[in-house]
Parts: sequence; C-alpha cells; structure tokens
Amino acid sequence: MAGNRVSGEETATVIAPRTMDFFQKLKRFPATVGRKAWELGRDDPRRPIHALKVGLSLTLVSLLYLMEPLFEGVGQNSLWAVITVVVVLEFTAGATLCKGLNRGFGTLCAASLAFFIEFIVQQSGRVCRAVFIGASVFLIGATCTYLRFFPYIKKNYDYGVVIFLLTFNLITVSSYRVDNVLKIAHERIYTIAIGCGLCLVMSLLVFPNWSGEDLHNSMVSKLEDLATSIEACVNGYFQDAEIETIREQSSKDPIYKRYRAVLDSKSTDETLALFASWEPRHSIHCYRYPWQQYVKLGTVLRGFGYTAVALHGCLESEIQTPKSVRALFKDPCIRVAREVAKVLIELANSIRDRRRCSPVVLSDHLEEALQDLNTAIKSQPRLFLGSDQVQATNMMAVAAAAANQKSNKNNSGVSISSVKTDSSALFEWKHKRLEEISKSERKVLRPTLSKIVITSLEFSEALPFAAFASLLVETAARLELVIEEVEELGRTAGFKEYEGEPNVEIVVNAPRTPTNNVFPTHPME
Amino acid sequence: MAGNRVSGEETATVIAPRTMDFFQKLKRFPATVGRKAWELGRDDPRRPIHALKVGLSLTLVSLLYLMEPLFEGVGQNSLWAVITVVVVLEFTAGATLCKGLNRGFGTLCAASLAFFIEFIVQQSGRVCRAVFIGASVFLIGATCTYLRFFPYIKKNYDYGVVIFLLTFNLITVSSYRVDNVLKIAHERIYTIAIGCGLCLVMSLLVFPNWSGEDLHNSMVSKLEDLATSIEACVNGYFQDAEIETIREQSSKDPIYKRYRAVLDSKSTDETLALFASWEPRHSIHCYRYPWQQYVKLGTVLRGFGYTAVALHGCLESEIQTPKSVRALFKDPCIRVAREVAKVLIELANSIRDRRRCSPVVLSDHLEEALQDLNTAIKSQPRLFLGSDQVQATNMMAVAAAAANQKSNKNNSGVSISSVKTDSSALFEWKHKRLEEISKSERKVLRPTLSKIVITSLEFSEALPFAAFASLLVETAARLELVIEEVEELGRTAGFKEYEGEPNVEIVVNAPRTPTNNVFPTHPME
Repeated sequence: MAGNRVSGEETATVIAPRTMDFFQKLKRFPATVGRKAWELGRDDPRRPIHALKVGLSLTLVSLLYLMEPLFEGVGQNSLWAVITVVVVLEFTAGATLCKGLNRGFGTLCAASLAFFIEFIVQQSGRVCRAVFIGASVFLIGATCTYLRFFPYIKKNYDYGVVIFLLTFNLITVSSYRVDNVLKIAHERIYTIAIGCGLCLVMSLLVFPNWSGEDLHNSMVSKLEDLATSIEACVNGYFQDAEIETIREQSSKDPIYKRYRAVLDSKSTDETLALFASWEPRHSIHCYRYPWQQYVKLGTVLRGFGYTAVALHGCLESEIQTPKSVRALFKDPCIRVAREVAKVLIELANSIRDRRRCSPVVLSDHLEEALQDLNTAIKSQPRLFLGSDQVQATNMMAVAAAAANQKSNKNNSGVSISSVKTDSSALFEWKHKRLEEISKSERKVLRPTLSKIVITSLEFSEALPFAAFASLLVETAARLELVIEEVEELGRTAGFKEYEGEPNVEIVVNAPRTPTNNVFPTHPME
Repeated sequence: MAGNRVSGEETATVIAPRTMDFFQKLKRFPATVGRKAWELGRDDPRRPIHALKVGLSLTLVSLLYLMEPLFEGVGQNSLWAVITVVVVLEFTAGATLCKGLNRGFGTLCAASLAFFIEFIVQQSGRVCRAVFIGASVFLIGATCTYLRFFPYIKKNYDYGVVIFLLTFNLITVSSYRVDNVLKIAHERIYTIAIGCGLCLVMSLLVFPNWSGEDLHNSMVSKLEDLATSIEACVNGYFQDAEIETIREQSSKDPIYKRYRAVLDSKSTDETLALFASWEPRHSIHCYRYPWQQYVKLGTVLRGFGYTAVALHGCLESEIQTPKSVRALFKDPCIRVAREVAKVLIELANSIRDRRRCSPVVLSDHLEEALQDLNTAIKSQPRLFLGSDQVQATNMMAVAAAAANQKSNKNNSGVSISSVKTDSSALFEWKHKRLEEISKSERKVLRPTLSKIVITSLEFSEALPFAAFASLLVETAARLELVIEEVEELGRTAGFKEYEGEPNVEIVVNAPRTPTNNVFPTHPME
C-alpha cells in the first residue's frame, strides 16, 4: 500500500519533469532545426543552391499565370506547368531528364491512345460510350499496373507508365462530357512541355548537378574508404590493449562506418547509373560513358568490402590469439595492409584524375610485404600447434631447432608463455558448465553460447591469427579483381594514358588515412 | 587492301543476319512478354490481383464523372479523384496509407497556408498582390525543397511535402484570377478525399497485402537462406573435385544468390518497416508491432551473411589447402555447419509460427560438434606447420608422439604427403617471375598478381583451412547475436510461449536444405 502511494507520487513527479522536458525540447526545436539545416548545407552546398533553383523555377512558371500577356497566350492550363515543375525538377540533371522525358513521352502516348479510342466510340450512343470508356479505363489501368511489375519497366519507365495512365484516364473520361477533347489534350501537352522545358533548362544549364559525377566521385571515396578501413583494421588488431579501450568508442565506429558505406551502396549506385545514362555528354570526359562499368566496379568493391568485414570481425571476435603471439607478426601484417592501402589510394587517384592507373600500381612492395609475412609465419611454426602443455613444450624445442637451422635473424628469441590449461581441468569445467545449462532456464542459456564456444574450445591458439593472416592474404588477392575492373573502366571510358610521377602522388595522399598518424609503424628490424 | 575488301563483304553479311535477328526477335517479342507476364503472376499471385484492383478502382472513380447523378454531386473536379487513385493506390496497404495520408495532410496544410496568405493580401493592390504571391511561391518552394533534404522528412514525409508544395502553388497562384478560391480548394480537398477513401478501402479491405507480413516473411526466408548457404558452403568445401567441376555452374550460383539476397536487403527492409509502421493492427498478432526490431534483426542477419560470404570466399580462393588435408576435417566441419543450419531453421520456424524459439535451440549438439572439430584439429598438429620439408619431417615425428600420448582414437593414422617444394626452387622461380614482370607491360602484369600471391607464397599449407575453420567457429559464435535478436523480437512482439515438439519440427524441416540429400554425410567413425 505504501508502495502504491509512493508510485502515485512518483507518477506525479514523473509527469512534471516530462512536461518540462517536452517544453524544453519545444524551446530548443528551432535551434535544432537551424543547426541541422546549416549542417546539411555545409556538407553539400549544392543543396541550398538546388532549393533556390526550385523556388526560382516555381516563381518563373507562376509568371505565366500572373502576368497578363503571358496568361493570354497560355491560359488557365498554365497550372499544369506549375504541377510539372514541382514534380519533375529533381536534384540531378539525369533524374530531371529521366522524369521529364518519361512525363513527356507518357503524355504523348496516352493522348494518342485516348484519341484512337475517342475515334472508335465517336459514332455510338451515350450509354454505349460510357460502357466502352469504363471498360477501356479498367483494361488500360490493369494492364499498366501489371506492366509496372516487369523489372525492366519498373527500373526505367515506372514514372512514364504512371503518367501514361493518368493522362489517358483524364482525357478519356473527360471526353465523355467535353466535345473538344483535342483542345484539352493540346493544352495539357503544351503546358507540360513548357514545364518540362523550364525544368530541363534549370537543371542542365543553371548550376547543374550530374548524377554521373556523383557516381564517379562515389567510386573514388569508396576506394579511399576501403584503404583507410583495411589499414585501420590491421593497425587495430595489433594495438595495445590499453589504447584499445580508450579508443574503443572513437576508433571502431569510423572503421565500421567507412566500409558500411561501401557495403550498403548497391541501390545508390544503380540509381545514379540509371540517371547518369539519361545525361547528355556534359564534358570532354563524359562521352558515351560506360556507366554500367561503374556499377560493376561497385559490385567488386562490395566483394572486397566483405573481406574487410571479415577482417574487422577478427578484431571483434571473442576468440583471440594472445597479444604476445600477435605481436610477433605485427610489422609484416601492417606492412601488407599499408601496401594494399597504397594500391587502393593509387586506384582512387587514377579514377579521380580520369587517367589509367600507374603501371607501378603493382609494385614489388606488396609482393615483398607478403613474402615477409610468409617468412615471419614460417619462422614461428610452433604457434600453429595445439596449446596442450606437454605437446607445446616438445614443440618449442623442435621449433627452436628449426629456427636455428634456418638461421632466422629476428623474433626467434621470443618465447610464448600463453599456455593456459590442461585437458583434465577443461573437462571438469565443461561438466560443470553442462550441469549449469541443464539446470538453468532460457535466459541463462542465451548469453553463454559465446562463452561456451570460446572457453571450452581448445583450438590451437594461433588459429584466430591464422584466419586473420589468411584473410589479409585474401584481401591482397582480391585486389587483383579491383585493379582489373578499374583498368576496364579506364579502357572503356577512354581515360588518358598514365604519365607523371606516381610516387609523389602516393606520398601526398598517404596522410589521407588518418590512422597512419595514430599508429606509427616500426620497421621490422 | 584485301583486308578492306573482305571487311566490306563482312559488313554486308553481318548486317543481313542482324536484320534477320531483329525480325526474329520482333516475332518472338509477344511470346517473350507473355511468358514473362505469366512468370511474374506465378511467382506472386498478388500481382495480377493488384492490377485488377487498380483497374476496378479507376473504373469506379470514373463513374463519378460518367454517371449523371454522381456527376451532379461532385462536378468537374472528379478528375482530381482519378488522379489521386492513379497516384496513391500502391501494392501494399502500408504504402497506400502512407501516400494517402501524406497526400491528405499535405493538401490540408497547404490549403490552410494558402488561405492565410490570401487573407493577408486581400486588401492590397493588383501589382502588390502579384509580387507577394510570387515571393511566397519562391519562399515556400525553396523552403520545402530544402526540407526534403532532412533525412527524417525524406524518409517519412517526402511525398507529403511535394503535395503540400503542389497544392499551395495551385491555390495561391489561381487565387490571383479566381475570386472564389475557397470553392476551388474545397472541391480539390473533397475529390482528393474521395480518391484517397476509395484507395484505402481497396487496399485495406479487398485482398489486402500487408507490408508487415512481407517483412515478417522476408525474415523467415532470410534465415532459411542463410541456413542453406552455410551448409552448402561447407559441403562444397569438402566436395570432390570431379563433382565440383560438374556442379560448378549449377551449385555455386544458388549459394551466392541466397546470401546475396540477404546482403542486399537493407533498403527493402527499411521501406517495408516504414510502410508497416503505417499499417493498422490487422490481425491478433500485429498489435503494436515492433517493426524496427525486424530492421535490427535484418542488420544482424546481414552481419551473419558477411561471415557466410567470407566462408564462401574460402571455396573460391585460389590458395587452397590440399584435398587430402581437408578431408581429415570433413565430418566435424560438416557437422558444425549442419548444427548451425538447424538452429537457423528452428529460428525461422519460430518466427514463422510467431512463437518463442525452443529452449533446445541451443542444443548440446552444436557444442559437441564444435568440440569434435577441436579434437580433430588438435589431433593433427603437424598441419599447422610450415611446409618446409626438413622441418615438416621433424614435426611429424613429434606430432605422432603427441597423438599417441593423447591416445586419440581417430585420424591419427592418416599421413600427409603434401609437402611440395623447397626454398631454393621457390627463390629461383621468384627471380624469374620478377624479371618477367619488369620486362612486360601492364596487360601482362594484371593477371599475374593472384599467381604471385598463390605460388610464390609458402604459407603453411593448412593456413587456408585454419581460416575456414576459424570462420566456421565465428559463424557459430555469431549465431548468438541472431538468437538474441530473435528472442528480443519474440519478447517485444508478444509471440506466444514455446510449446510442442521441437525435434519433430526440425526433422520435418531438415529436407528444406536441398544439399542435405545431395551430399550425404558420413559418421566420423
């Protein structure tokens, strides 16, 4: 009862702060919106320009109606021009062209068909005409709607089909009561043409935004993002634990965000390529551009991104190779990552400058780095053994012998002391755990799975590192696919031949990857 | 010169078949379209039903204009109802509601604002009015367009803002010449209401399609797809080479398609969840549904899918562990995959039946399978050594001793004879390769990268397998996240408690994964 009283009081005290909170939020609302609006404009200054363009176009098209001499020419139907401008004027030239041409073509086709039907029913009686009109509306409506399910139509001409249906219905239905349908249709087409024309002028000539350029730039930034995240991933993997916890919030998210942007880019890429294919040649570089090649490159980059995700998964995995073991391979791994990133940055630069990529893109550095990694792994054979104590001790003797045999100059002195447990203890633990599981309810079961997986499994301690190294090598191998597609893009898009000093460019762009500064890498010696 | 003549003839002979080809295609066009239309309808019978619904709605709304008594009530403006039906009636109830309510609300707001402005300028002179109208059109146009860049507005109310802008312009501009703007606005709202009402009736009551159900079902099929592809991947990894070449075209693509469908589902999921949030409670199960939880589950499933991609990458990688080595781990790996697939299928079933998932979802089987894999890996410690011959021989002796010590019952008798090359031969080869590279041009460089990576690296032969095994364990660990999200979904959506025989269901659903029949798995013994 006391509880009830308290909860009643609590409700009262809870509501008051809530109301306060609401008013606080309301008070801060204009400031929040203002800040957000400012950020949107700062991130992409083309946005406010586009907004002004739309405002200007609407005012211009309104003049048709507002100014006496213009109104006399165009008439009441000028309102259609206003509608057209609102609906057709899009952010990029390609999107506007796509919508405008779809709208124009859809209207023309619909008008033709409507006149054909009008011509057929001309002679018949009033009731018969109504029935015929109703039937044709039903038939055309159902057919057009079904057509929109065809993937090809949906992708390219969805808007055109909608406008076709709209115009057809308007003309056919109004033809029942209006004698001069031709005039209606004529005026509608006329004003739509004016609206579309204005939209095209505004989007093609006044501060035009090209979908094709957006697509082009998105590829550059994707390559750079991948370069940064690969390097950050590998650096993060070898980072010290203390730094890791400090940077956990700040560092992991950017990596994630960067490759996530690449992974989720499919629909954006395809839309941009679609709009870009409607755009006319707008610069010397954009003649008969192979936009589909960009989509293909995007697909390959996503494939590359999946490897980056798996690599990042190694960082986050709860099954980890001990730091001491990882440290042995730090330098060669970081070097491989740096070389991979370098190649990606060079590819990004070549696309940005619309030139073929440098022949030294496949420098020996990457191969050398891979060779070093290989040498480092071979020099530590004992890592790839089970962590059973007896066995490990035996192995270490052999390994030391092997290391001496190969007169391996570095790392051979480092001993691994991360042998954890023997089998009997594990089995005891496992049985205890199993009893717990059978006793406990679902709630307890769920969070323990990863613990079971991690702790009860005595996988060779180096197994997670083996996966990491293998994925890193896989990344280097996948680079080939990316280079191939970029080359193919350069070939089909007619990029200029390579000339100049690639090394300078690489040096200039290296600081782009911010993690470079954060995690200085040490030479192997 | 001879070449020129030949090429001229060739052109002639090329054109003729091309024209032929075109006519052939034209002849086949109706048949192609018909077949495609039939397939679209067969794949989802709701499509033709929707098309008929649209046709019917258009005919009904046309009756407003065609039938004398109705026309007298509504008047010329009934054409706005036709437009509304064409534009608003969408495939699912949620999409129709979203568009319809946006349209209705946008129109109402725009009308209010237009009247307010009309009220202000009422007293001023003609020129002053024109200027004021022009200025307000510009201002509202620019503001609305900029508003559409706000992610929140763009996601939820984009259409509403467009309609607001459209209606505002229509009313404000026409108010300049028409005295009775109230009548125009009233009629426009009236007919839009009729159109929206008809659309809502058609989409909510006549064969409704619910976005929420689509989203729900898509989660079920995603879980099933992942289960199938994980199993198919692992089976494929251990497949015999001969079968592989035969099945290459038929088997790899389905795996790829299945997880690709999961990976590319982000925008679809979000759209469906958005529309679903507009849908009213349409069944006893759908009360206050946590649609965002589905989106979260989708994100986790994509994360799981990335691991599946990486696993699949192991199949396609050109760096491979020899078959003989892989064969040693075939059974435990396949068992882990089967258990993971079983859990996924059980989760899929629980979502499909809207019940909490079975407490035995985390059966001991998965843990046992992981333990077996661990045992198998530990029993073959020599695999995780470098392939240097001398070293390998030493290691094998130790490994045999270790195996005896642990009295491991299986696999210990199998010897590995896959030691390939010694270092000197490799270095010779490498130098030759490097010379080739420095001599040759870009064209030659590109395709050789993967070869360099593969052949010149002497990674421990088992390294690729280690990555595979580690990824498989990672998959099992990630399962926990999926289970967590599904549990959370069951909790927030109020799924009914689990009851019944889970084992029966699992047995019933096992043949769903077609690969089960194709690749029979043998017991380990």
